[in-house]
Amino acid sequence: MAISRRGLMLVLSSPSGAGKTTISRRLLSEEPGIRMSVSATTRARRPGEVDGQDYFFEQPENFQLMVNRDELLEHAKVFGNYYGTPRGPVEDALSDGKDVLFDIDWQGTQQLEAKMRDDLVSVFIVPPSVAELERRLKSRAQDSDEVVAQRMAKAADELSHYPEYDYIILNNDVESSVASVRAILRAERLKRERQIGLPDFMKGLREGRT
Amino acid sequence: MAISRRGLMLVLSSPSGAGKTTISRRLLSEEPGIRMSVSATTRARRPGEVDGQDYFFEQPENFQLMVNRDELLEHAKVFGNYYGTPRGPVEDALSDGKDVLFDIDWQGTQQLEAKMRDDLVSVFIVPPSVAELERRLKSRAQDSDEVVAQRMAKAADELSHYPEYDYIILNNDVESSVASVRAILRAERLKRERQIGLPDFMKGLREGRT
Repeated sequence: MAISRRGLMLVLSSPSGAGKTTISRRLLSEEPGIRMSVSATTRARRPGEVDGQDYFFEQPENFQLMVNRDELLEHAKVFGNYYGTPRGPVEDALSDGKDVLFDIDWQGTQQLEAKMRDDLVSVFIVPPSVAELERRLKSRAQDSDEVVAQRMAKAADELSHYPEYDYIILNNDVESSVASVRAILRAERLKRERQIGLPDFMKGLREGRT
Repeated sequence: MAISRRGLMLVLSSPSGAGKTTISRRLLSEEPGIRMSVSATTRARRPGEVDGQDYFFEQPENFQLMVNRDELLEHAKVFGNYYGTPRGPVEDALSDGKDVLFDIDWQGTQQLEAKMRDDLVSVFIVPPSVAELERRLKSRAQDSDEVVAQRMAKAADELSHYPEYDYIILNNDVESSVASVRAILRAERLKRERQIGLPDFMKGLREGRT
């Protein structure tokens, strides 16, 4: 016996280097009921990228049309390209009892919050220390000192937005942080208002039909 | 590195026979940070019971004084005796970052809700079916048919109050239900507003002291 439920939107935010990407990947591989949100973008498709899987690749005119029609739950311009979250696939997943994972910053979270408050569960990942954050950013061999410095400045900005999140995880240890995100997901799925099949189930139970 | 937090009050309610007592015992033995709330009562102490551990045994006059002084978070009369939750030990535990478990009915939950809303996490355990509930009540050898019938009637009343709870767990399987309650506890401990040490920690992080 199971009670049908509405899916939820799980947002993971953190400064780059706090461990968010590792945690997201682990979550997607360990939790069958959740999938990554696929963004729409105006940037050119790179070799190997699949339309509708990595991104929905859109012409700028079409992207603007989606904005005008309120078909994007959030959108932003990054390095001259537009990125956004199409509403349709998210609504379909939620109605179908599937959860959707978002790896976005505080600005995207604020936009989602404004449109989808009841479906949103927001988690902010905090690095254990500034020294550790810097060490992790530097260990990415491909990044120049300048890029690291930029990321540290951006991290300070991102960190100031922690009060806008529902849950805060101090990422001392990846195993423990993955377990914490999974606990949040399990708990949020048990929230009464997400279990949309409950009124029917309880009626059956009270009337002795269940 | 850990961030100090305020404890929480975890309420487990269910009709008798839904499995609440088993789940409570497992939770107390597996989760070090939570302890059972100790009630005050006017009923006589039974052999083997320890004052301050099983109950705080009080004279009726003293119990009434506690009610008048608003020293009880909730109270009720059951079979001619009074039972209630003293405020002091709960407040001490919460301030100390410890969680408190309550095994109470919907009436007690409503009273706690009125006084301690921000600290309260309420969980309602639902039996998988009426037949299973009856089977579990009957398997308690000590109960007469009359007692079972009374409990079934009380169960129907209790079940009607599920919309007042934060989380609903369908108790198909004890292992899964214990894991669900533990996930709720872990998640609720990660709620931003319970992590009272966060503002200081984040200040240190932004200023590079952490």
